[in-house]
Amino acid sequence: MWRLYQFALCPFSRKVRLVLSERKIPYELCQVLPWRRPPDFRQLNRTGRTPAMHDAERGIVLADSRAICEYFEETFVGYPMMIGSAEQRAEIRRLVAWFDEQFYADVTWPLLRGRLIVPVMTGGNRNTGMLPAARRKADAYLDEIGFLLGNRMWLAGPTLSIADLAVAAQISVADYFGGIDWSGHEQAKTWYSVLRSRPSFQPILAARMGGIEPPPHYSAIDA
Amino acid sequence: MWRLYQFALCPFSRKVRLVLSERKIPYELCQVLPWRRPPDFRQLNRTGRTPAMHDAERGIVLADSRAICEYFEETFVGYPMMIGSAEQRAEIRRLVAWFDEQFYADVTWPLLRGRLIVPVMTGGNRNTGMLPAARRKADAYLDEIGFLLGNRMWLAGPTLSIADLAVAAQISVADYFGGIDWSGHEQAKTWYSVLRSRPSFQPILAARMGGIEPPPHYSAIDA
Repeated sequence: MWRLYQFALCPFSRKVRLVLSERKIPYELCQVLPWRRPPDFRQLNRTGRTPAMHDAERGIVLADSRAICEYFEETFVGYPMMIGSAEQRAEIRRLVAWFDEQFYADVTWPLLRGRLIVPVMTGGNRNTGMLPAARRKADAYLDEIGFLLGNRMWLAGPTLSIADLAVAAQISVADYFGGIDWSGHEQAKTWYSVLRSRPSFQPILAARMGGIEPPPHYSAIDA
Repeated sequence: MWRLYQFALCPFSRKVRLVLSERKIPYELCQVLPWRRPPDFRQLNRTGRTPAMHDAERGIVLADSRAICEYFEETFVGYPMMIGSAEQRAEIRRLVAWFDEQFYADVTWPLLRGRLIVPVMTGGNRNTGMLPAARRKADAYLDEIGFLLGNRMWLAGPTLSIADLAVAAQISVADYFGGIDWSGHEQAKTWYSVLRSRPSFQPILAARMGGIEPPPHYSAIDA
């Protein structure tokens, strides 16, 4: 049985959970908080980052969300998440990279740091000063999602792929902190609502952390 | 013929150039400066980031350095750069991700921004205040490289892989700005010297930008 080291609001861990659930790969969760990483986790994954996975029976350790997803793409037959030609797969990987890196730096990380990690580590106020800037930056990405959906069924093409799950994972964490204003983004909102109603999303949306309640629309099925 | 959109001190462009050269894939260069991205580049690659590649004849656009490297791994037979089992490939991808993301954020980006991009954009001083912190952070990565090489021929295993090229690409840019202190890192230094003497590195090490001269050891073959 695979064990996934993660925390509930880590967008990269969410991506891996979504991929594992969609592909029906069983796993158990082990929480690693960003402000208290146990030494045995550092021994397993020397970079200390979440997510990481461990199959103790076979002695396999995987780290980095993209490396983990590619590993299961290569080793697991059912429900592939990177279907298509090399060119289509390049488009999937382009979108994953863009949200993993740019959206995370612009939107997810400032919210995660300012609203959860810094307050927990310093005992300080739950700063919300970064919200307007995060929302404004998220807006441009939602526009781009609308643009992509203008002539595609899913973000990277005709089939659900890791791109949809990676992008939705980032957005779901930003949405938890109130960083997403859906108004004026009908296509992105519809795409996200369809994804969010899938069984793979339900345990992820049910999680709460640090005493922070997400906005009412966060897990409403028909929001 | 592939065209690669890049600039000389972009570590991700360097990685792609190294992979293309090692695999003997012909390409031509097109410079896209980080402070002056032409509109037609934005049309080709909506995220605006380097590197991107374009095969005009076949109408194929690739963006994001990892997506580009994976594309050539899937479509090009000669000189593969991700050899091994799924587990070994996961280790290659883990190392690429770690240096692309963490080393870049800790070392390469502060140097690139502070010593090149901000001075060019503002006409201000070539700040060197970030050098001690960058060197100190780079030190921990050089230790880790030494640790990996303790029982491996190359960074991810017995064969040269994209991991070596990605890590060396980041280090080469940091080294250009004087951000690498090699003393006390004999294993990492030997590994880098061997890589640096390969033909694929020569055009990369010959490039200069922004009137900044790298330290004397930067391109010395026997440094």
